[in-house]
This record gives sequence, structure tokens and C-alpha cells, in this order.
Amino acid sequence: MKIAIAGAGAMGGRFGSMLAKNGEDVVLIDQWEDNVKAINQHGLKIETDTGTEMYPMRAYLPQEIDEKMDLIIFFTKTLQLERMIQAIKQVIQPDTQVLCLLNGLGNIETMEKYFDRECIFMGVTMWTAGMKGPGYIHLSGDGSIKIQNIGASGEKKAQNLCDVLSQAGLKASYSPDIMESIWWKAAINGCLNAPCTILDCDIQALGSTPQINPMLTAILGEFQAVAKSQGISLDVDQIMSDLAKTFDPSQAGKHFPSMHQDLIQHHRLTEIDYMNGYVSRIGKEKGIDTPVNTFITELVHNKEYLLKAQ
Amino acid sequence: MKIAIAGAGAMGGRFGSMLAKNGEDVVLIDQWEDNVKAINQHGLKIETDTGTEMYPMRAYLPQEIDEKMDLIIFFTKTLQLERMIQAIKQVIQPDTQVLCLLNGLGNIETMEKYFDRECIFMGVTMWTAGMKGPGYIHLSGDGSIKIQNIGASGEKKAQNLCDVLSQAGLKASYSPDIMESIWWKAAINGCLNAPCTILDCDIQALGSTPQINPMLTAILGEFQAVAKSQGISLDVDQIMSDLAKTFDPSQAGKHFPSMHQDLIQHHRLTEIDYMNGYVSRIGKEKGIDTPVNTFITELVHNKEYLLKAQ
Repeated sequence: MKIAIAGAGAMGGRFGSMLAKNGEDVVLIDQWEDNVKAINQHGLKIETDTGTEMYPMRAYLPQEIDEKMDLIIFFTKTLQLERMIQAIKQVIQPDTQVLCLLNGLGNIETMEKYFDRECIFMGVTMWTAGMKGPGYIHLSGDGSIKIQNIGASGEKKAQNLCDVLSQAGLKASYSPDIMESIWWKAAINGCLNAPCTILDCDIQALGSTPQINPMLTAILGEFQAVAKSQGISLDVDQIMSDLAKTFDPSQAGKHFPSMHQDLIQHHRLTEIDYMNGYVSRIGKEKGIDTPVNTFITELVHNKEYLLKAQ
Repeated sequence: MKIAIAGAGAMGGRFGSMLAKNGEDVVLIDQWEDNVKAINQHGLKIETDTGTEMYPMRAYLPQEIDEKMDLIIFFTKTLQLERMIQAIKQVIQPDTQVLCLLNGLGNIETMEKYFDRECIFMGVTMWTAGMKGPGYIHLSGDGSIKIQNIGASGEKKAQNLCDVLSQAGLKASYSPDIMESIWWKAAINGCLNAPCTILDCDIQALGSTPQINPMLTAILGEFQAVAKSQGISLDVDQIMSDLAKTFDPSQAGKHFPSMHQDLIQHHRLTEIDYMNGYVSRIGKEKGIDTPVNTFITELVHNKEYLLKAQ
């Protein structure tokens, strides 16, 4: 199968290399020149807990590649998804399947603008990976993937897609309610990312603050109301219980969520509009009150401005 | 007139010295030992734009003084008001008048717990002053005071009080709607203090952020609703216009509000419960939605916890 990984950061590198090792014809596509150059010169440097290898792979800048793909797996930043789709139009055929595994809300709307619904697959992944430098990733831990087709007739294709990924060790399974999983993950992220960013603390410290529960309950109540308006059911009690596990010092460690890394540590623009900001936007469209997520979104955008984030 | 200034920081020093220079019998009371000691040893060091003087004044720790007062003017931190009242019980007679000029909401409830309503006067002051060290204050700029009695029969006493203050140059005038002025000032502070603290920026920078207006509108809408439940009318458009002046670079300068100084710069507990937190608390009591001020209050308390504020 001819597979493009669009966005060859840590997760793209993990998926790309695992699929390639299983015999798929994989190319990596990335906007980051140093990354592309390093991979082409030395292979992808893959560090695991047991050792390091240089795994030969082909990598391209978006404008450099012109081969038609059977499958494109998107692993860009959410903010860059649309630009990436536009930049690799030339590799897309009418029956090219596209799988979006990005965190965040609203990606499906972006995908629908460019692809036939029958070819779109949305997914949630529990795999993790870290970027250590250009062409250099670190892999540890276990994971799994849930996938669902968006078009009605694509279920069989989704099952095939799961097979391709699972044969490469990626443990993919079909989910009949992927939007609930996407919202679940977005709600978790909406409770961790912006609060840690605004308070400038790691997840464990956030979980230790005295007034964390009413804060999270307020955030989640609005997520739930907006999700409901899209026909999606969110179990707030379950999410609170999942968050409590995340805050457990024996589980969470001293980890800063990605938004903190982006904004506070690197002064990069955040994905707030695809988390709390999406809830705020849809809330406004549907006449649902979302004052807390709106306020959070404004705070984060103002902090972006103050830190001259780009 | 025998006057005690309870809380002899910058503002207490300003009021106390101006009243003493006009012939009133003034004592300063403060919890800060170094301050009391410095004033007693060298006088109050008063710096103005035209020079510096050492003005002799009597200063006491609360437990050290036992003279009955005609008037007590409170200039503690809001957080310390109740403790100060309790600590100077011995100087209070049944007809001692008490004037509270502190910023913040809820002080009137504290005053009513300890004093007869006929003796309580609430005020708002536009004077400013800066503390430069123990027994050392800086005075600049012009100001004025508005005062109102709380008890029905105290209006004449309030007028007398205004005369005493005005004769000392403090420009006091009677206001028939002091609670509106107190709410107006609290609303201004509720829009500046916590947002600058949460975003770690000065007032001018806050005013320059792109999403400041919806943030402030959300905060003020809740202030207005809760004020209305107490029979007080807040003009949100007027306050937005007053805030816009504060943000004007030619007016505001690069000034950090007191809450930022307290929490971010000195890791001290904040007065949030007497600003946005008061709106949140009364909102809960009266069944008025105040999600934004509640969230702000929780954020600030969590930041206090993270910074180990005391």
C-alpha cells in the first residue's frame, strides 16, 4: 500500500516507520526542512528504551512530492492541517483514503472541505512519541488506535485500514462512535492544556491545586452541552475520573501539556481554537452559553499576543 | 479630634500626616513592627516631588495602644481589616466613628459585625501614595474622597467628617450613593487586577491585548447583575469607557496593579475574594450566574497555591 505520512514529527515518524517495517511503501512529508534533510541523509533515527537505530526512509517537502497515494495519514499540528492538505493536492487521487489522527475539534470540517466523505476516516490514537531533533524521535510505551469512516459506505474500508495498521503493530480497531472518542480526548485536553498554560504549571501541579474540581466541572459542563448539540454524549463523571487518574502523582509525573510547551516554553501559537475555542464558537452558533471556555480562549489568545507567539 | 489611623502604610501615612498637620491629635496603628519603630524613632519620612521631611508622629502596634478614639480611619489591607478591628477593640467607645476607605466589596459586612450602623462611614478615595520602606512614604498627585454614613441618622456626622478631612486638604465630599462608587471602583479593579495577574502583564499591556473587550464585558456583566441584586446600579458602558482611559498609554503608564504586585512579585495572598470572588459568592447566594468571575477567582486561588502565597 502506498502510504504518505503528512506531518513527520514524532508521531508521524512512529507510524511511518512501523508501517514501513511491515512492508508498506511509506513516504514522509513534512514542512520542516531540517527534518526532511536529516531523514534523507541518515535515515530516521529511532530511539527506544532498548537502543537506537537509523531506519532508512524517504522524506519530502510538500512541494517536492508528486506520487499518487492510496492512503494519507495526517499528523500535522492541527493549526497546519489545512495548509498541508492544500500543499499536497498533487498526491491525492479520487479514491485516496485519508486518515486524520490529530487531537482537537473541528478537523472533520476541514477534511470535508477537501475530500469525499467516503474517503475520510477519523481516528483517535493513544500512542505517544517524542521529537528529539531533526530526523530523531524517541518511542516508548504502548498504544492503540480507534478508527471510523465518516461516509456511510466506508465501514469495510475502515476495517481494512485497521488491518493494515494492526499488522504493523499499531493495534487499530474499528469504533462505531469515533466522534465520542474525539470529544472525550478533546475534553481531557481542554481541561489540561489551557489551565496548565494559564497557570504556568505541569499536570501534576494542576491536579494538586485546591480549586481544580469546580474549574474542571465548569469547563466540562460546557463541553457536554455543545457536544450534545452535535448528537454526541459526553459522560462528565467518567471524564472527571479519567482526569483524576492523570493527576495521580504515580501516573502523571511532571509532564507539561503540549500547549504549555508551545506557548510558554516556545512562544508558538496554540491550538486553543480547536479545543476550548471550538466549544466557544459552536456554542455561539447554537445559542449555548459557554462563558468559561470563551474566557479561557480569550485568555490564551491574549497570552499569545503578549508573548508574541508565532 | 482624636483620630487613629488603623493601617499605617502609604495611604494611612498620607491621611495621618495631613490630618496631624492640620492640628488633629493623630496616632498611627500598624501591625508591621519595623514601620512602627521607624516612625517613633525618626518620625514619618515623607517624600514629595519637591523634597523630603521627617514628620514626628506617634505610632503603635495594635496591642500597645489604649486611648479612646473619636474617629478611626481604616487603611489596612482588606484581608487584614477584621483582624485589625479585633486587635484594637480597646480604643473603641460606643460613639467612636469609624471610616472605611478600603477598596473591595464586603467590607461593609465586616464593619457591621463590630460597629453600630450609626457610627459607620464608608468611603472611596482617589488619593494615591507609595510605600518606600519602614516609616517612609512617597506622595504625589491630587485626590479626593467621597463619604457616606451607613446608619440613617449619620448624615450630619458624615458632613462633619468631610469638613475635618477637607480642612486637612483631603477634599472630602458627601455622597448620597457611596455604594455605587464602591462598586464602580471594585468593578474597575475586578477588570484590571486579576486579568493582569493571570496574564502576568501590566495595565497598558492588558489594554493592548486583542480580546480584552469581550473579556471585560463578561466580567462586568456579572458585576452588574450581582450589584443590581443589592439595589445598586452599575453603568457598564461608562466603566468600559473609564477602563479605556486607564489603558491609554499616555495615561496609564506601565503600572502593575496591586494584585500582581502581591501575588506575582511578592507571593502574597490576594484580595480576590473581595473583588471577583465577592461577585461569585453573592451570585451563588442569590442564584445569579457568575461563571466568569467564579473561574477567575478559582484561577487566582490556584495560582496563590502554586506560588505558596502567604
